[in-house]
Amino acid sequence: MNRVYLDWNATTPLRAEAKAAMLAAMEVSGNPSSVHAEGRAARALIERSRAQVAAAVGCKPAEVVFTSGATEAASVLARLPQGVLVQDTAHDALWAHRRDGAAPLLAMGLANNETGIITLPPEKQGDGWPYQGVMAHGLLLDITQAVGRIAFAFGWSGADMAVLSAHKFGGPKGVGALIVRDGLDIGTLSLGGGQEMGRRAGTENLIGIAGFGAAAQAAQRDLADGVWDAVSELRDILNQALSAHGFPTISVGYGQRRLPNTLNLIAPGWKGETQVMAMDLAGFAVSAGSACSSGKVRASRVLKAMGYDEALAGQAIRIALGPTSRRDDVLRFAEVWGREYRRILARAA
Amino acid sequence: MNRVYLDWNATTPLRAEAKAAMLAAMEVSGNPSSVHAEGRAARALIERSRAQVAAAVGCKPAEVVFTSGATEAASVLARLPQGVLVQDTAHDALWAHRRDGAAPLLAMGLANNETGIITLPPEKQGDGWPYQGVMAHGLLLDITQAVGRIAFAFGWSGADMAVLSAHKFGGPKGVGALIVRDGLDIGTLSLGGGQEMGRRAGTENLIGIAGFGAAAQAAQRDLADGVWDAVSELRDILNQALSAHGFPTISVGYGQRRLPNTLNLIAPGWKGETQVMAMDLAGFAVSAGSACSSGKVRASRVLKAMGYDEALAGQAIRIALGPTSRRDDVLRFAEVWGREYRRILARAA
Repeated sequence: MNRVYLDWNATTPLRAEAKAAMLAAMEVSGNPSSVHAEGRAARALIERSRAQVAAAVGCKPAEVVFTSGATEAASVLARLPQGVLVQDTAHDALWAHRRDGAAPLLAMGLANNETGIITLPPEKQGDGWPYQGVMAHGLLLDITQAVGRIAFAFGWSGADMAVLSAHKFGGPKGVGALIVRDGLDIGTLSLGGGQEMGRRAGTENLIGIAGFGAAAQAAQRDLADGVWDAVSELRDILNQALSAHGFPTISVGYGQRRLPNTLNLIAPGWKGETQVMAMDLAGFAVSAGSACSSGKVRASRVLKAMGYDEALAGQAIRIALGPTSRRDDVLRFAEVWGREYRRILARAA
Repeated sequence: MNRVYLDWNATTPLRAEAKAAMLAAMEVSGNPSSVHAEGRAARALIERSRAQVAAAVGCKPAEVVFTSGATEAASVLARLPQGVLVQDTAHDALWAHRRDGAAPLLAMGLANNETGIITLPPEKQGDGWPYQGVMAHGLLLDITQAVGRIAFAFGWSGADMAVLSAHKFGGPKGVGALIVRDGLDIGTLSLGGGQEMGRRAGTENLIGIAGFGAAAQAAQRDLADGVWDAVSELRDILNQALSAHGFPTISVGYGQRRLPNTLNLIAPGWKGETQVMAMDLAGFAVSAGSACSSGKVRASRVLKAMGYDEALAGQAIRIALGPTSRRDDVLRFAEVWGREYRRILARAA
């Protein structure tokens, strides 16, 4: 069966550029910490990737600390002496680190993984913003869903730290980075060897890092080329097609500043998990909430934080498009989804 | 120039089996946590690798927690409430976690990365063994250098936990595992999503894990086929050729139970780092101490713990062979090394 993948916020297909870089890295046998020629060749690959990631994120290469993903990068929050105030719609990787304490640092997502809604940095927020004033103590931005999809530069963001994962923009899973503002001492993410200038112990994921760098560079180029404008149009076409069925759905974040690819739709009376399974059987991959917690059948914490009640928060699906999503597939999704929803409502009536 | 890689304890070339598995995994687009078909395909890859790693390590699949390497796996030590007694020759990834406290757990390496010397598990040790009696509080074994090189089965080892890295036996760098005895609750290595049955948050390194599993299976098959017997013979041939020069060298651990591939040689009057650089220029990759700390020019902590003085501990090189090492390359190494050493001694005289 011809499958249609519409879950690009969970993870993305590996880019050709990333694959090519990884294949090349497979031929490099050295340990990047070794001083001999084989080691230096591996080190050069890592440093090239560091420069590529830095260029895509808008920071200095020395500010990039390679990790096994955004989750490990966010573990820097566990090492801070101060309290951690976490935005209530942030990803679990940040949310898990919230704790009371003096002079709290703020940890927040730049773009929400479930709704695509973009949160402006604190200094751009108005007086009503709940976290006003917290900025002074430090800011960690989760840019995982934003990199390569919207313009962003760490150096201009006012953030002290940022976390990201390669696999959200065509890189491999299991590699990411913590960005740390030049001059800020975070100690170390992990004890052991002195890798990453003492900031993260453990032999580097050479092949994954090579893919990360190549994907970051390609993603940045795609963004500059306007690839996501077409994705945004397609998302709006999908939204219209879904609305045209006339169901009492809610398009979460409609009209707000959002990622170009994300549509979060609440379908009253139809559980999110059931929607996902029905659409999976019909050949479409979408999700209910974030993939990381999708094993758990429960209402979305994010939607509840936005004010939706338990029932509605459990009846949402996230449809996340990518540059290779096609118009006819998306329209077929809308058609099949409408038919299924009608059946569910008829059965309940 | 034809390079000869003799640094297999730092890292190993990627095996063909690992490469093939990684290439196949590159075509799997799903997030292993997603419930749709793409997610389930990714999940199936992870579980196949888990079974392969379990078979190679001699544990149950459910006892395998995938991590970004042995260093991250060893971070479980930081989460224990009790003290941690670390064997004085253990790798930095363990050594960094030593701390006083009641009912200390013992953390030790099964095979030393610098010398290849194999430490028998505590219950096999005689009365003079310094850690006698500690076993009762728990044992973590670093099996990183042992997997695929000597027979080992976690289930028979008496250990509660073990740590390993894929890249020491032909898998990719940046992936490894913590083995946790069935029924032992370690909490979680990292906060965030509920991956690895709640024991390690973060989207899994799908491609790396696929390579890990394939490499573990191939390494186990090679071990059973006696591949390392030939390596051991070659190591002994190298040892004899080096001794035949008549220098007052010390072959560390000679006659002791050692890894089949490792030769640690102290060359009085010739600094380890200088040896590494001279041999690198001549086309050979070897190391002075562990790769993780090779950036630091200092005497080996391991050799000092064994009783060698500061000077001798700074004059060692580690030559680590692998299944593709060739007799003529090894003999050429001995010849070039002897010539260089003679020049150094002549200059000093």
